[in-house]
Amino acid sequence: MLSKAQIKYIQSLHQKKFRTRLGAFIAEGPKIAVEVLDKVPSRVQYLAALPSWIAENSPLVAALPPDRVFPVEAPVLEKISALTTPHEVVLVLQVSDESPWTLPPDAWCVALDDIRDPGNLGTIIRIADWFGVSHLLCSPECAEVYNPKVIQATMGSFLRVAVRYDALAVALAALGRPVYAATLDGAPVTGIAASPPGVILVGNESHGLSSGLLALATLQVTIPRIGAAESLNAAVATGILLSHFTRNGSPSRV
Amino acid sequence: MLSKAQIKYIQSLHQKKFRTRLGAFIAEGPKIAVEVLDKVPSRVQYLAALPSWIAENSPLVAALPPDRVFPVEAPVLEKISALTTPHEVVLVLQVSDESPWTLPPDAWCVALDDIRDPGNLGTIIRIADWFGVSHLLCSPECAEVYNPKVIQATMGSFLRVAVRYDALAVALAALGRPVYAATLDGAPVTGIAASPPGVILVGNESHGLSSGLLALATLQVTIPRIGAAESLNAAVATGILLSHFTRNGSPSRV
Repeated sequence: MLSKAQIKYIQSLHQKKFRTRLGAFIAEGPKIAVEVLDKVPSRVQYLAALPSWIAENSPLVAALPPDRVFPVEAPVLEKISALTTPHEVVLVLQVSDESPWTLPPDAWCVALDDIRDPGNLGTIIRIADWFGVSHLLCSPECAEVYNPKVIQATMGSFLRVAVRYDALAVALAALGRPVYAATLDGAPVTGIAASPPGVILVGNESHGLSSGLLALATLQVTIPRIGAAESLNAAVATGILLSHFTRNGSPSRV
Repeated sequence: MLSKAQIKYIQSLHQKKFRTRLGAFIAEGPKIAVEVLDKVPSRVQYLAALPSWIAENSPLVAALPPDRVFPVEAPVLEKISALTTPHEVVLVLQVSDESPWTLPPDAWCVALDDIRDPGNLGTIIRIADWFGVSHLLCSPECAEVYNPKVIQATMGSFLRVAVRYDALAVALAALGRPVYAATLDGAPVTGIAASPPGVILVGNESHGLSSGLLALATLQVTIPRIGAAESLNAAVATGILLSHFTRNGSPSRV
């Protein structure tokens, strides 16, 4: 059983300031839980789940010290969950403090400017993971990667994509890689031949990229518009750009 | 001022059964409102907006008969809006009963199986519009296009994409066009040369396409996975497939 203090601790992680202060965050749902238990059980501070879920997943749950596993009933899950409709399992994970964010040679990277919507950021992390891109650079205005909505939307891909927050202009200059900036009037990405791996820079779909960032672009690229929609969602655009840019290359992974 | 009966009428359109019965639906927000007033003012049954919005947009609002325009205050907008945080303008539109859904020769089409999430469907309508695809075929299990969340996510593209609901197996056979089905183990879409226009068939990201539908595929296509994510979001996958398939062709529009 979770104590009142533990419940309060988990609830505090619904807020960014406590996630930052405590170095922990919430991940929910059976799919993510199974993946975490399988790959990084040492990061689990608490696992709270319906007794039936714990029983069904006992071989995986056995990877945890017993004092980290809490069978709870639905009303407790509702209290600690950050979702409107809680799943049967909630995890509290430690923020990983592994190796620093270092982009390997020949690896693709995605840089996001001002992507504030948590669902969008989570979806982009999942897309990056699909295309083998394990490094994401985010402007400070982007949603926080440990926001429960971001974690949820990554569908587990947060385990494989390292996210760094930094002023993009400085960080991109320091990286010294080619920068392919998504704009509405660049070169058609469908016509671009194999390009040296670099950074795909995507901005907010309403405001686009600032002129300061555009000045850093090696190449401005565009997804050719045939119809009349004013813009594409930032996650969809990132997916389309990655599918073209990684077509001929083989992105490295950490 | 909106009467109590009018408020009740608009609120009833939050529910599918009343949208179907009354042949009307809600569209919200300044971006969509401006586009509707500009292009299809005759479909507007009611426009309810803050007086300031009406004043700022008076040339457009003048396209409507005065008895369809209702200046309202924020509390009334909250009552009639289908959003958690209402915008300054809410429209009630008539369901269009124009020309039947007929796919022009040489036009691309997107067919969706079991896409239940309204945000996903709306995003796909927006993507289709970007790529000049004006015909969408949906299985009956898909979200309803007049759901306010779908309309919102289309960002106005619902005005340019005709959506038909039908049993896909029957409809696809009757269309007689090439069917390119998205699967996890088909031909890499990145390597496909120019293909005759046809139907891009996308299923639910958790369950994929049924064997009955796969049997109708002219070709199974896959977005090559380089990394480890289990799947791509259906809207992202649709965008990537369209960007490759329409690369060499020029989809027709109605």
